[in-house]
Amino acid sequence: MDSTNSRREQLRIVIFQNDTPAGRRFDKTLLVVILFSLIVVVLDSIPAVHANYGDWLAYAEWGFTAIFIVEYLLRLYCSPQPLKYAFSFYGLVDLLAIVPGILALYYSDAQYLLIVRVIRMLRIFRVLKLSPYLKQANYLLSALRGSKQKIIVFLLTVSTLVVVFGTLMYVIEGPEHGFTSIPKGIYWAIVTLTTVGYGDIVPRTAVGQMLSALVMITGYSIIAVPTGIFTAELATAMRGEQLKHDCPVCSKNTHEHGAAFCSRCGNALFPRVENKA
Amino acid sequence: MDSTNSRREQLRIVIFQNDTPAGRRFDKTLLVVILFSLIVVVLDSIPAVHANYGDWLAYAEWGFTAIFIVEYLLRLYCSPQPLKYAFSFYGLVDLLAIVPGILALYYSDAQYLLIVRVIRMLRIFRVLKLSPYLKQANYLLSALRGSKQKIIVFLLTVSTLVVVFGTLMYVIEGPEHGFTSIPKGIYWAIVTLTTVGYGDIVPRTAVGQMLSALVMITGYSIIAVPTGIFTAELATAMRGEQLKHDCPVCSKNTHEHGAAFCSRCGNALFPRVENKA
Amino acid sequence: MDSTNSRREQLRIVIFQNDTPAGRRFDKTLLVVILFSLIVVVLDSIPAVHANYGDWLAYAEWGFTAIFIVEYLLRLYCSPQPLKYAFSFYGLVDLLAIVPGILALYYSDAQYLLIVRVIRMLRIFRVLKLSPYLKQANYLLSALRGSKQKIIVFLLTVSTLVVVFGTLMYVIEGPEHGFTSIPKGIYWAIVTLTTVGYGDIVPRTAVGQMLSALVMITGYSIIAVPTGIFTAELATAMRGEQLKHDCPVCSKNTHEHGAAFCSRCGNALFPRVENKA
Amino acid sequence: MDSTNSRREQLRIVIFQNDTPAGRRFDKTLLVVILFSLIVVVLDSIPAVHANYGDWLAYAEWGFTAIFIVEYLLRLYCSPQPLKYAFSFYGLVDLLAIVPGILALYYSDAQYLLIVRVIRMLRIFRVLKLSPYLKQANYLLSALRGSKQKIIVFLLTVSTLVVVFGTLMYVIEGPEHGFTSIPKGIYWAIVTLTTVGYGDIVPRTAVGQMLSALVMITGYSIIAVPTGIFTAELATAMRGEQLKHDCPVCSKNTHEHGAAFCSRCGNALFPRVENKA
Repeated sequence: MDSTNSRREQLRIVIFQNDTPAGRRFDKTLLVVILFSLIVVVLDSIPAVHANYGDWLAYAEWGFTAIFIVEYLLRLYCSPQPLKYAFSFYGLVDLLAIVPGILALYYSDAQYLLIVRVIRMLRIFRVLKLSPYLKQANYLLSALRGSKQKIIVFLLTVSTLVVVFGTLMYVIEGPEHGFTSIPKGIYWAIVTLTTVGYGDIVPRTAVGQMLSALVMITGYSIIAVPTGIFTAELATAMRGEQLKHDCPVCSKNTHEHGAAFCSRCGNALFPRVENKA
Repeated sequence: MDSTNSRREQLRIVIFQNDTPAGRRFDKTLLVVILFSLIVVVLDSIPAVHANYGDWLAYAEWGFTAIFIVEYLLRLYCSPQPLKYAFSFYGLVDLLAIVPGILALYYSDAQYLLIVRVIRMLRIFRVLKLSPYLKQANYLLSALRGSKQKIIVFLLTVSTLVVVFGTLMYVIEGPEHGFTSIPKGIYWAIVTLTTVGYGDIVPRTAVGQMLSALVMITGYSIIAVPTGIFTAELATAMRGEQLKHDCPVCSKNTHEHGAAFCSRCGNALFPRVENKA
Repeated sequence: MDSTNSRREQLRIVIFQNDTPAGRRFDKTLLVVILFSLIVVVLDSIPAVHANYGDWLAYAEWGFTAIFIVEYLLRLYCSPQPLKYAFSFYGLVDLLAIVPGILALYYSDAQYLLIVRVIRMLRIFRVLKLSPYLKQANYLLSALRGSKQKIIVFLLTVSTLVVVFGTLMYVIEGPEHGFTSIPKGIYWAIVTLTTVGYGDIVPRTAVGQMLSALVMITGYSIIAVPTGIFTAELATAMRGEQLKHDCPVCSKNTHEHGAAFCSRCGNALFPRVENKA
Repeated sequence: MDSTNSRREQLRIVIFQNDTPAGRRFDKTLLVVILFSLIVVVLDSIPAVHANYGDWLAYAEWGFTAIFIVEYLLRLYCSPQPLKYAFSFYGLVDLLAIVPGILALYYSDAQYLLIVRVIRMLRIFRVLKLSPYLKQANYLLSALRGSKQKIIVFLLTVSTLVVVFGTLMYVIEGPEHGFTSIPKGIYWAIVTLTTVGYGDIVPRTAVGQMLSALVMITGYSIIAVPTGIFTAELATAMRGEQLKHDCPVCSKNTHEHGAAFCSRCGNALFPRVENKA
């Protein structure tokens, strides 16, 4: 209850929560900083920009790293359990946001640091905490979770199709038409089945073209499957703030949120036990 | 109530409304003129046509501009609040329809005027006022509005995927395979994730092809998400889901579709008429 | 009632209807003949096959033409109103099936006859009369008919997008990157928006690539619109063998096929008028 | 009831069923072996890997073949009707898994054996027996079965479109733009309609590009049809649509979902329990 503790607590509310105006302002500021740091990474990768403004962008990167270090230390300071935070998912993402800036001091041209610098982007999803997006994201996630097993069955079928078709094309077309190995054939089958169709490897023989026509029509038709699965689940998830309870008389199993009587048979959903007398 | 005013009022009904035969005829005539002016722009951009008929098309353009000027002045004249009209969305679009014709008198080869001339096309949506399209467009718009937040969550996820995958490919494939910068990688990721697949930039390394197979299958699967969102919203918009009827006992005014009894008080919502005896 | 008339009537039942075993056998035989005549056309277009078997295929074509002539004459003979049949849609298609064979006697290399010979394929849809496909086709057609106005609104929006984006790209990229005219730009915009992505014309400038990324994401997202429209309509059409009648008491407007009482309020849907006493 | 028979029975339960821990362990082990044998096939097709590790992969293949032979003999041994098993679908697939290994002893470079070796992958679907995937797969299969006739009507329409458009393009574009025969035109039409868009054959003439724009928009729109069909069927399969309950008066046994009164006799389907007084 001393002033240090209450200051830490206030800071924690601003940094970790978003139900106060100050907390929302902090989140929004952080979002802007993250986006700017991302833009710097992207711009720096363009040769012409790097040649002319490379130094300025490096200074900016140091600036962003400094901001993220301060933020990380503040989070550690005001977190009630610093270690638990440090090893949580977001704690690690926050740490990752600092690492490349520090490593870059030693290895100046490390390409692979780029990936870490871009992973900072994941921090944007902290901002999704801002309602009302959270609720909508939850609908989508619960629909995805509900359809997980169906999606696995679907992906297993697609994988089988892709391996079988890829092997067939490798045997039919052969290395002289670009199908140099079975993995290449599988790559072609995925490019075709998903209707992407780069055109870097295409069938040249009549049999190969007939087979690929089959693959295309299959891919064109079975896209209906994930769509159907997800739509049906999402419709359920959106109707879904329902009361799940079997009516003791007619067995109707879903009811309006807050229903006391069954809308089908009019009987009380939860019979009164006579224990007041 | 003098004759000028009533003539202005009559003109206003013809020009701005479409519930009289004359108003509908005016709208249809305007539609035809707009389409013809569009065809002139399109034809004029073809080198062979421009060389042979360029002059005639320029005369036609002047003619259309004259028509649009007269129409704009008439709209200003008969509008009850000319200034409010002039600065409304459609007022500005109507003005834009005139500008290129006038500017073209001074700058004969201004390419960028083309865009303004094509924006005239937006005026076609005035005609959508013609029922029964308006009602159908409203269903679509209300479904889009209802799914706005879900769509934003979806687009945010897609953006993150595209940036991360684009950066990964830039690091993996490098400039020698066409991935000259991160923006180029992001462009490739969008081309692949949306299943467009131009084939102007394609992965050449084994790791790059494995990663792009992942991007393709992701793109092929998550197209289910906007489709599911929109379908579920549209089905809701078209049904109207709930029964609106006051319960005779407790006055609860919305009920489950198909409810026979009030879920709050358990009383029958509708009286039985005794005509079976 | 003389024997000629009854033979004509019997023939008519076999040829025009499909509710007798003989009628179904006739339809199936015709289907096989049509498919074979189609295969002959397709094979004849392959240079290697034409060089080696061109004569045999020509004989086969004459054979099929003979069969179709006999069939056409029989249809005319046993039709109760020969003229009405001759000018009906299928009558004309049946006639078209004969014409190319006859014309080919005079003009041996007429490429355009090919199209007419392929249009014979439309006759396959006669076979769709075979239940149970007819019922399913009706579901699909009624869903399409129900969504017609929404589809028109959608196509109008797509057309506008395509024209505006095509013009923008023509201005931005210009003839040196393949965008030689606005129609070419519109062609590119359609290739991109529909996610076909041939790659014959691709953006080369940074601004062009950003714009095309926008077109792709638009195309990827708005495919949800026709899908959602059609799904919602089809679900209605499939539920749709329902009795449409407002319940006089509770106004429930759709009921089970054959319902006598409202399933929501239990009242008679069609009150008994007391006119028996 | 002697010990041999009971051992056979125990073995049968482990090998053919999956409701005991031992049975599930057997299935999972088999799955791993199948996947490894598949990886060996795929790796062996890469020239660089084949050159360096070809011998090792051949030894591995012999090992897998030995395992599959033992498994096949065990299945024959413990099956109650060995012949019936041997000629069942899975019995033949199990046999196929052995054949290539044995044949490879005689013909060392037989490319076509590859296909048989990959078909082993179908054995993965044995593992789908593992609940809860079976139930989900059944939903998908029953939705597919329910929409079979609609899908056939759809595929018939697509086939007709593809043949007609392919022929038109062959006539319009001709051999000089890659449309060397009608089958080539049909191949192009499938590539375009399914929105794959390789770009190996593209229209060059203005008329051809207009026609292909039509094909693209058709393909982009009608993908809504299989999606709509499947979604509507799946929603039905997941809901179970009708209320199964015998009417106490007239014994009508299926009713509208949410029915409170019988639509045939108008009597209440469910009695009111008097617990409100």
